[in-house]
Amino acid sequence: MSKGITSRKTDYSQWYNELVVKADLAEHSAVRGCMVIKPYGYAIWEKMQAALDKMFKDTGHSNAYFPLFIPKSFFSKEASHVEGFATECAVVTHYRLKNDGSGNIVVDEEAKLEEELIVRPTSETIIWNTYKGWIESYRDLPILVNQWANVVRWEMRTRLFLRTAEFLWQEGHTAHATREEAMEETARMLGVYADFAENWMALPVVRGRKTENERFAGALDTLCIEALMQDGKALQAGTSHFLGQNFAKAFDVKFTAKDGKLDYVWATSWGVSTRLMGALIMAHSDDQGLVLPPKLAPIQVVIVPIYKNEEERQTIGGLADTLIAELKSKGISVKYDDRDTHRPGFKFAEWELKGVPVRIAVGTRDMENGTVEIARRDTQTKETVSQAGLADRIEQLLETIQHTIYEKALGFRDANTVEVETYDEFKRVLDEQGGFVSAHWDGTVETEKLIKEETKATIRCIPLANKEEAGVCIRTGKPSTQRVLFARAY
Amino acid sequence: MSKGITSRKTDYSQWYNELVVKADLAEHSAVRGCMVIKPYGYAIWEKMQAALDKMFKDTGHSNAYFPLFIPKSFFSKEASHVEGFATECAVVTHYRLKNDGSGNIVVDEEAKLEEELIVRPTSETIIWNTYKGWIESYRDLPILVNQWANVVRWEMRTRLFLRTAEFLWQEGHTAHATREEAMEETARMLGVYADFAENWMALPVVRGRKTENERFAGALDTLCIEALMQDGKALQAGTSHFLGQNFAKAFDVKFTAKDGKLDYVWATSWGVSTRLMGALIMAHSDDQGLVLPPKLAPIQVVIVPIYKNEEERQTIGGLADTLIAELKSKGISVKYDDRDTHRPGFKFAEWELKGVPVRIAVGTRDMENGTVEIARRDTQTKETVSQAGLADRIEQLLETIQHTIYEKALGFRDANTVEVETYDEFKRVLDEQGGFVSAHWDGTVETEKLIKEETKATIRCIPLANKEEAGVCIRTGKPSTQRVLFARAY
Repeated sequence: MSKGITSRKTDYSQWYNELVVKADLAEHSAVRGCMVIKPYGYAIWEKMQAALDKMFKDTGHSNAYFPLFIPKSFFSKEASHVEGFATECAVVTHYRLKNDGSGNIVVDEEAKLEEELIVRPTSETIIWNTYKGWIESYRDLPILVNQWANVVRWEMRTRLFLRTAEFLWQEGHTAHATREEAMEETARMLGVYADFAENWMALPVVRGRKTENERFAGALDTLCIEALMQDGKALQAGTSHFLGQNFAKAFDVKFTAKDGKLDYVWATSWGVSTRLMGALIMAHSDDQGLVLPPKLAPIQVVIVPIYKNEEERQTIGGLADTLIAELKSKGISVKYDDRDTHRPGFKFAEWELKGVPVRIAVGTRDMENGTVEIARRDTQTKETVSQAGLADRIEQLLETIQHTIYEKALGFRDANTVEVETYDEFKRVLDEQGGFVSAHWDGTVETEKLIKEETKATIRCIPLANKEEAGVCIRTGKPSTQRVLFARAY
Repeated sequence: MSKGITSRKTDYSQWYNELVVKADLAEHSAVRGCMVIKPYGYAIWEKMQAALDKMFKDTGHSNAYFPLFIPKSFFSKEASHVEGFATECAVVTHYRLKNDGSGNIVVDEEAKLEEELIVRPTSETIIWNTYKGWIESYRDLPILVNQWANVVRWEMRTRLFLRTAEFLWQEGHTAHATREEAMEETARMLGVYADFAENWMALPVVRGRKTENERFAGALDTLCIEALMQDGKALQAGTSHFLGQNFAKAFDVKFTAKDGKLDYVWATSWGVSTRLMGALIMAHSDDQGLVLPPKLAPIQVVIVPIYKNEEERQTIGGLADTLIAELKSKGISVKYDDRDTHRPGFKFAEWELKGVPVRIAVGTRDMENGTVEIARRDTQTKETVSQAGLADRIEQLLETIQHTIYEKALGFRDANTVEVETYDEFKRVLDEQGGFVSAHWDGTVETEKLIKEETKATIRCIPLANKEEAGVCIRTGKPSTQRVLFARAY
């Protein structure tokens, strides 16, 4: 098959857009800003969901489901939250259509809602309004709940997975008796996200804290994981918020503590979304197509038989049956591609495009020699190996590939994380190579905004692993006690 | 704990409403008609989803995701579909709110959509608009796709799980090259639903065909499974529709057949929803609370230790640790309830309310005798058994319970399915015992509507297993060739 994808070097953005569509991951829909996630893309998302869901449950969380709609007035209850979320949103104003008599379907003005409903952009308000009824005393705490849901934020400029009006995500919303416990939860869930990113997505991330300016609307503290894409731009891959008592106060959620005193409940929220699909694609893939880490690949191994006649096909089929059974018993997903409508070369290109980690080709000569040809998607290398012990070898190889993809991404990130001391150097690094730029900053929102205006770089985070270090702000020359991580970002 | 649930005999409807809330399954939200599915209720739904999802995949289907919103004009493209679905629905008209200057958040009239968007009540239209881009030739067929999603139908009278404005469901949408293949798919998926209802939900169902009047808006044929609740009312538990070429024609989806001819694509759609939660609850539960079939119970076994001091607690804890490990290795979910904030009697009542199939109580005398007490939720029976071989015994008991619950429901349904010959008998049976009433009908929509007006009974289905039988319509006396199944229904 002809892939015809623009190369990353020619136009990284175009490469991404084409790859998402050609690899059958997603496409734009007839509805502005909303995407269709195609079966192959959704299969990757399902693998992400399954891994994350298990991690949430292993850390004591349960799933629940809250309404899609939020009454408009709820947004006004938390002052900073409304600024962040109630502006660009889908507003439901009516609950009926009617035939206007001449065959046109029109909105029935008699069915106007008394109060408009907002399609949830995030669910803190409706959930805290619900928690009010669930919480009376410390015995009802903690509440550790997660929701898998669709949300809508009316984005004017959309890109598949990275920025869409509707997207899929999970949002955890927890309620605690103490500040400390809520802060621990915030940190714990950031740890879960970092673990998932690194060990499942093979994506190295910097664990950090957002500046006040970049915080979630309504949070006292936002922790995040930040990843670097191949074009040198950063991507926020997950956030975990310490909300303090803001939402408990907005929705009047109090509890009786062990000592009998009444206090507001402490909250956290945390989420990752289908945006992670964008990160996965951009971090690892190449000009030939997707490169998927084996742990998230819907198909981990594809077997392509190469035959000239039905007899050869039968012989190879016999070997394949045995191998498939062995691989499946190891929990490895395998596809046997014996379509006779396509040539082997077409199939090779197709599975390469779709990022299948391991391809096994078997021809008649292989059958004579007791061998197969194994091709690795990540390194584009091939080798001929014995059929004996093949399933074990493949199992090990998948682990090796998972590890190699991570190491490659880590090497890239390390090579593209630079410490600078001056503003000139800062701007030069940003323009010439991009990446994370570690620099001193005077700690003010004004300087942060100024730097953003002048360079389009934002403070991605204050790394949690930061060491104290005296220095001067690259922009203002004022004193600073630590470096922060800047980048241009998605 | 005091349960205080109204008995079924006193007020079945009230019993249901109270049970759903008291068993922590779901509650009404601040948004009219929308429910909150609480963690315990959602855990049951997750088990349903997992079982169904596996069945869909085992029959060759993949999941995908399509937009929440559907442009208003899409509904006008399929004439009968618009009548059925575009009337009572949530209409998005604006995409921005603003602060009006005096602190009020109001709809920004400058952000009015050119074309209103409907929150999907079902996705045939947006999906067939998408399939147009996926299908060119017979090689692209069949498309076997399912979606797990939320949908909204603006219901004026809502009941938790049974009828809510927003609900969760799955909707399968398949595309085929021939009428026969699409009809086979329609039947296959009805079979999947019946299998799921009977073998997972322990719910006997009648497989049947809807009359023209009760068909899905836009379908040529609607197959369904119908179940009977304990109050003698029927509940439609799943539908599978043969859509013919209606949606392909509405959205101009043609394909080139093997012989080179261009033809419209054949379609099916099929769905089940969180309504199944209502069916599950109403079919099996009793005045003490939920009765859950073991295969769908989030907690299958609860162990309650009965101790007077820390030493006794430790001793029992040792036994519990071993038993829990054995049960978990068999894939049985078990909860050890050693809360010291509640007495054993409270715990017994709580787990009874929540429908945990098996309760094991262990006291000090049990430890001396090498026994435990096992209580079955479904039959409310208790027995004292040896600790030896306990895990195996429990495993078998769970299978027995699953079977017993099904048999009980089947016995109830059989006892409440009556053949009648006259309209007087028909009305008397409906009023005195309810249930399924099998009667002759003249096959016209007029008579069907007349019977509904006069008795509130609808034709639930024409059973697929029907035998031909000459008779006369109970209402009009006109000739009939087969009986159909009437009932008052949810």
